[in-house]
Amino acid sequence: MTTTLTIAELGDLIERILLRAGLAPVQAGPVARVILAGERDGAKSHGVYRLDGALQTLKAGKVRGDAVPRVTSRQGDAIIRVDAGFGFSSPAFELGLPVLAEQARASGIAAMVVNDCTHFSALWPEVEAVADHGLAALVMCPSYATVAPAGGSRPLLGTNPLAFGWPRPGREPYVFDFATSVAARGEIELHRRAGTLLPDGWALDRDGQPTTDPDAALEGAMLPFGGHKGSALSTMIELLAAVMIGDLTSPEVLEVLGTTGLSPVHGELVIALAPERFAAGREGDPFARAEALFAAIEAQGARLPSQRRYAARKVALAGGITLTKAESDHLALLLERGLDAVG
Amino acid sequence: MTTTLTIAELGDLIERILLRAGLAPVQAGPVARVILAGERDGAKSHGVYRLDGALQTLKAGKVRGDAVPRVTSRQGDAIIRVDAGFGFSSPAFELGLPVLAEQARASGIAAMVVNDCTHFSALWPEVEAVADHGLAALVMCPSYATVAPAGGSRPLLGTNPLAFGWPRPGREPYVFDFATSVAARGEIELHRRAGTLLPDGWALDRDGQPTTDPDAALEGAMLPFGGHKGSALSTMIELLAAVMIGDLTSPEVLEVLGTTGLSPVHGELVIALAPERFAAGREGDPFARAEALFAAIEAQGARLPSQRRYAARKVALAGGITLTKAESDHLALLLERGLDAVG
Repeated sequence: MTTTLTIAELGDLIERILLRAGLAPVQAGPVARVILAGERDGAKSHGVYRLDGALQTLKAGKVRGDAVPRVTSRQGDAIIRVDAGFGFSSPAFELGLPVLAEQARASGIAAMVVNDCTHFSALWPEVEAVADHGLAALVMCPSYATVAPAGGSRPLLGTNPLAFGWPRPGREPYVFDFATSVAARGEIELHRRAGTLLPDGWALDRDGQPTTDPDAALEGAMLPFGGHKGSALSTMIELLAAVMIGDLTSPEVLEVLGTTGLSPVHGELVIALAPERFAAGREGDPFARAEALFAAIEAQGARLPSQRRYAARKVALAGGITLTKAESDHLALLLERGLDAVG
Repeated sequence: MTTTLTIAELGDLIERILLRAGLAPVQAGPVARVILAGERDGAKSHGVYRLDGALQTLKAGKVRGDAVPRVTSRQGDAIIRVDAGFGFSSPAFELGLPVLAEQARASGIAAMVVNDCTHFSALWPEVEAVADHGLAALVMCPSYATVAPAGGSRPLLGTNPLAFGWPRPGREPYVFDFATSVAARGEIELHRRAGTLLPDGWALDRDGQPTTDPDAALEGAMLPFGGHKGSALSTMIELLAAVMIGDLTSPEVLEVLGTTGLSPVHGELVIALAPERFAAGREGDPFARAEALFAAIEAQGARLPSQRRYAARKVALAGGITLTKAESDHLALLLERGLDAVG
């Protein structure tokens, strides 16, 4: 027996679960919205499945459920700073976003730094939110040390996601969001559970030797995508979104948390750019020209990123979100018993 | 018989060749410096070898040898605009760099747009120049349509390089600079000349089918590195460093030039970030923390990017630059006969 809820109903249920678990309203609303976005878009690993991870992190005392984020930069600063107060990242991001958007529109380019936050969501909801302000966005953050640098042998870098968004007036933005590791840790976990071997080039064992055994990989290190290029990008993310913003690098996150089983506490960097400010005085409308580029990509049969998510969203908007019996039973249990229902 | 010149001597020779070919002094100096940097760092494909390409582009009337670049933005703008006037990119870059550096130091983040330039150099000299001002830098530009998007079949994207620099006080910066195609076009050319097959995954033939035949690849399309991730990055570069800045995309460049044999005319985007501004008020010195990260990478036996170039530079600084007889004969011919010596 499945249950189908409207998007609003599921959002409300998630928020009530978070409040029941002890999150303050200032935290519960934004966290619920980002979990709902994952479920709505069929990104199951970032949907209601993530509730448990978030609540485990809360139960372990590694995130403050009552943190009140605040913007600490002054009006007109090109760097918008948001102190998440060791709460979740989403409330801090939501608070800073309009300030970032105003500054980027005014001067063409601006950055937002979120410090001291627990970040468990994908980055695409964030680039999409920036793009909804008519801005292009680059977002990056470190993770925990689980990836060896190219040519190395041991975990040092994180899976360090990089996301980008470009606004498309009247429709969903062009958005990509990918791990700089060749695979996500969850994909290795799936191979382990299925008893299948990993593809070549995904991982090293604990001795730094290539392995296709999921167990050996989980004890060893993942590899960056694209060899030395992906490794360089991942290093850049450690530099810009940890070292430069005065927050934890991936090895430091792992040291502080002591596990990859909880959501990482660290910082995040957002760069927002106003296309019409950059294009001012030049020929051609940047948004129309971008559409011509997208059309040329699709004319080859190539897909733009995020299309699967947008298709799932359309289905959810029209017909709601369907949960399995196990999922809705679990949500009911979380609502009834709060953190006691969390492993 | 080889010839060994000091770095200064070779720089002087290159500049005289460019002047002899008809470049105005405002163009010849910066162009000579970037070609010299390639030769000095052992990056042969960007060294004196590039003189011919630059001069062929001049001879074909596709670059203005007397262009005088100018900064068109106002003081205090977060976007520094440099109009290269359809000259080479280097004079425009050199002109705008101090303005960019001042703005980035003042506000933490700033962008520089170079428009209407012919760009034949690697991007690492530019990120290195920004890093010499104590700033981190991201630089990108499109190229010509020679790369198919992931899942596509025909050339559309350029080899679209992405470069990044992080300043390391007292030593050469951390710098990477890579094509977002799996290989550079020149590497396919080398396989063709050597009569060897390409590795799998480099290219498609003119029917959009995978090929390892260099000739078929040159008539077909190259592929992005890292599958859909590299393809997404390359698309981002078309959006930010062409569409957004009101300059030519890679397919437009190819249409305007009609050949991949000349240097592309397009624009360029530089984003500069001041680490100490971002880190202000947070614990830890970002430059010291970056060194700890670099040390941890090297402790695994992994190499930082650009180390081969820096080693070659050390040799050149100590003992000069050695040219083969063919190279020095060719330079002598260029100096004597100017554009008449260019094919």
